[in-house]
Amino acid sequence: MFSDAEKLFDIDRMKRFDEFFHPKSVAVIGTTARNDWFWLKNLVSMDFNGKIFPINPKYTSALGLTFYDKIANVPFDIDNAIVAVPAKHVHDVLKECILKRVKLVTIFSSGFSETATQEGKELEQDLMTLKESTKSDIRILGPNCVGIYCPESGLSFRPEFARNQGRVGFISQSGGLAINMGLRGKTLRIFFSKIISFGNAADIKPVELLEYLGYDKKTRIIGIYLEGIKDGPKFMRVLREITPKKPVILLRGGQTDVGARAAASHTGSIAGSNDLWRSLFNQTGAIPVNSFEELVETLLAFNFNYHHLPKGNNVGLLSVSGGVSVINTDICNKLGLNIPKLTPESVSRLQEVIQDVGTSVQNPLDLAASFFNIHALKVAIETLGNDPNIHSIIMEIANHYIYTPEQHGVEGYANLFYETVLQLLRRIRRSGRPVLVAFPPIAFEARRIWDRKLFIDAKIPIFSSITAAAQALAHLTDYSNYLKTAKKND
Amino acid sequence: MFSDAEKLFDIDRMKRFDEFFHPKSVAVIGTTARNDWFWLKNLVSMDFNGKIFPINPKYTSALGLTFYDKIANVPFDIDNAIVAVPAKHVHDVLKECILKRVKLVTIFSSGFSETATQEGKELEQDLMTLKESTKSDIRILGPNCVGIYCPESGLSFRPEFARNQGRVGFISQSGGLAINMGLRGKTLRIFFSKIISFGNAADIKPVELLEYLGYDKKTRIIGIYLEGIKDGPKFMRVLREITPKKPVILLRGGQTDVGARAAASHTGSIAGSNDLWRSLFNQTGAIPVNSFEELVETLLAFNFNYHHLPKGNNVGLLSVSGGVSVINTDICNKLGLNIPKLTPESVSRLQEVIQDVGTSVQNPLDLAASFFNIHALKVAIETLGNDPNIHSIIMEIANHYIYTPEQHGVEGYANLFYETVLQLLRRIRRSGRPVLVAFPPIAFEARRIWDRKLFIDAKIPIFSSITAAAQALAHLTDYSNYLKTAKKND
Repeated sequence: MFSDAEKLFDIDRMKRFDEFFHPKSVAVIGTTARNDWFWLKNLVSMDFNGKIFPINPKYTSALGLTFYDKIANVPFDIDNAIVAVPAKHVHDVLKECILKRVKLVTIFSSGFSETATQEGKELEQDLMTLKESTKSDIRILGPNCVGIYCPESGLSFRPEFARNQGRVGFISQSGGLAINMGLRGKTLRIFFSKIISFGNAADIKPVELLEYLGYDKKTRIIGIYLEGIKDGPKFMRVLREITPKKPVILLRGGQTDVGARAAASHTGSIAGSNDLWRSLFNQTGAIPVNSFEELVETLLAFNFNYHHLPKGNNVGLLSVSGGVSVINTDICNKLGLNIPKLTPESVSRLQEVIQDVGTSVQNPLDLAASFFNIHALKVAIETLGNDPNIHSIIMEIANHYIYTPEQHGVEGYANLFYETVLQLLRRIRRSGRPVLVAFPPIAFEARRIWDRKLFIDAKIPIFSSITAAAQALAHLTDYSNYLKTAKKND
Repeated sequence: MFSDAEKLFDIDRMKRFDEFFHPKSVAVIGTTARNDWFWLKNLVSMDFNGKIFPINPKYTSALGLTFYDKIANVPFDIDNAIVAVPAKHVHDVLKECILKRVKLVTIFSSGFSETATQEGKELEQDLMTLKESTKSDIRILGPNCVGIYCPESGLSFRPEFARNQGRVGFISQSGGLAINMGLRGKTLRIFFSKIISFGNAADIKPVELLEYLGYDKKTRIIGIYLEGIKDGPKFMRVLREITPKKPVILLRGGQTDVGARAAASHTGSIAGSNDLWRSLFNQTGAIPVNSFEELVETLLAFNFNYHHLPKGNNVGLLSVSGGVSVINTDICNKLGLNIPKLTPESVSRLQEVIQDVGTSVQNPLDLAASFFNIHALKVAIETLGNDPNIHSIIMEIANHYIYTPEQHGVEGYANLFYETVLQLLRRIRRSGRPVLVAFPPIAFEARRIWDRKLFIDAKIPIFSSITAAAQALAHLTDYSNYLKTAKKND
């Protein structure tokens, strides 16, 4: 199907990529005291497990590391080089790296094609011309990128990123979004196999990185932020190869004309036609999202439900209020999720324990005052979890109701509530049904942070709104449905 | 245009409604120690400025108030009665209230038509039959409602609601959403003229409440949560009368078939056809929203921009990252907001101070590293605020960048940043252009609460996401555009 030249998952090429993420040594070129040794600190803080060689003739040592005046004078082989010198000096540095047989150069420096100036474009072209004229097999990431975060080896572009390894791989055209992803992910216990910011993609193309994450055994879920596509058909082929094995969630920047104009001035991207993108999503099973928060929250849902995708579209909804139940039902329904009736057995089981006024023992389940009755709450969650009509559950928690009993002197109610709920939700998840929690910011904001942490620590995905939870569940469900079709067509 | 019987803004009827919100005395019927005197505490905690008469033969006093065994034995006139006795006793209580010439009865009790049982429907019908047979001019709110919150008089259905009076009036079919609105509003400094939960609307209809808020001088912005419409044409006429004077933001529950089914079991509502609702929004200038959070955030935007609606669709966007800028532009654009080019004068003014790599001095403005340069930031905000092509501004703040300089030892940077930004944004608002802030939850979650409070206290509306900010701005802008048309047609 593919010619040899464009063979997918060329094992040798992929193995070589793998080395880029696990270098035995890294040179940091252009690190200075002025920015507090930023690029050095990223590696030191993450306990990078190879050798670090700072290069800058102005210094002799910092952070306990010995400086070298130039890369040629480093008495060891260098696998990766991180380059943070002004754009006009990058060409010379690249030449030195080629002579030193560096395998991967990550160019942080900006001022290249993204400026859309003749000068910037030429500077970038000069780098590629140099690489080609020397017949070097060096690879270049960037320029205008923040590079690689790989907690396994300790490569990083931020000192405060998590050291935990995870199953999510993220490729980003934007360095800012790569940073945001690492920080936000840490809070939500979305841990990463790799985050890669590729900037202007002068040499290494996003499609190669996608291919690599498809090949990489550590990566089980893939996120992408992309402003433009240069090799549409190849990108589509790679996506089609990957999505039956790993979900790929894609945020496209430049969807509108003005957005595309902004993208052009950001990374010099050509956005690609809307038709191209439409067929990309239709034909590949890639999951489109429309905002950074939706991207993060979809990754959160996949990350915590990796082993139990929903078996269908039917959702059991649980809340404390009738009005809320109605709105939540509308929101789910508009996203293609069904709110089916429960079996008669479930309904009569619920009727036994939920008898307060204002309750509804059908789906959506409106517990009203029974929310405060731990036994009733327990039966409600269990019944939803066991009902054969239900494929997944969204529980909305209104913590102002949880803290109200405490305000009226019932000490420890919140603890009891969370203990019970978490135990039950985990049990349902073990039975193979995804559980998502919507946790709206009504009141008790400071406590919400801690309450939410309970769920994140228990690996129950928790969202600030039913809209976000339902959207994430819809993505999970669509992917689960897609897998069935993909298998059928196999 | 209207027959006398359906005359809008019948001043006498409206004045009578006004009295319901400012009673000289309230009887609380069925308050008990078991629920910690809840309905009494609501009034006491809010310093209700009239007399309070708890009615329950089992008690003699609580919270310093003397109990009466029955309402007939209260030696004063009673304007309002709050009824929290079991459904089967409500008929007798209503009879006593009629004899006592109570003006308004608020029935909290559930178990009426919302149960969709024959018994519940009959109990509710019996109340109306009693009212009619005695030819009483008593009015009934509910049953199955939490009633009235009016900070001016101290009526309330929650003890912790704000005492501050505000300009937002909210009518809700759902008691839960009325509670959520009061609590959420307090956090966001959305203060209320009135919140009214009307439940089953056996007697007082939502359209009457809408009429009243239209008439009420204290109410300048109206929010509604409605699950069904019984008198569509009248509702539409009232809306048409109000929207040229006050914005009306309407959240409709039961938009989908399953949502409508849930609504039917919640308040026994018939949802009304989608056609009816479509024409209601098209013909009246009412603003449709699709989630509770969107409702709250739209009220937030109107509340803080009440005196300076945008004069057009053109938005100036400001952020710290190129990728973020691109996504934000797409989101705004899809909501009908333009991101116009700036004038050449603005661009050259910006170029003078914003020279860091990776910045963009066009709209969307991508400050990159210049975000840390207070002078550059200042010029950027001022320039956007003065550009004649710009009608409103959305600034996205990434607080992880603000706290990074502090982590690297630049003490007080965050304070300086917020002081500068707030001063500038307030100045722009004074010049008549709305300013909205998007404040995504990337990191520093606990600090975010306090940071956000700075903006809320300065009455700058601040949102958790660009999606929410852009959505709120789109509603502001649509309403502003609608007003122009409404005036033209006058």
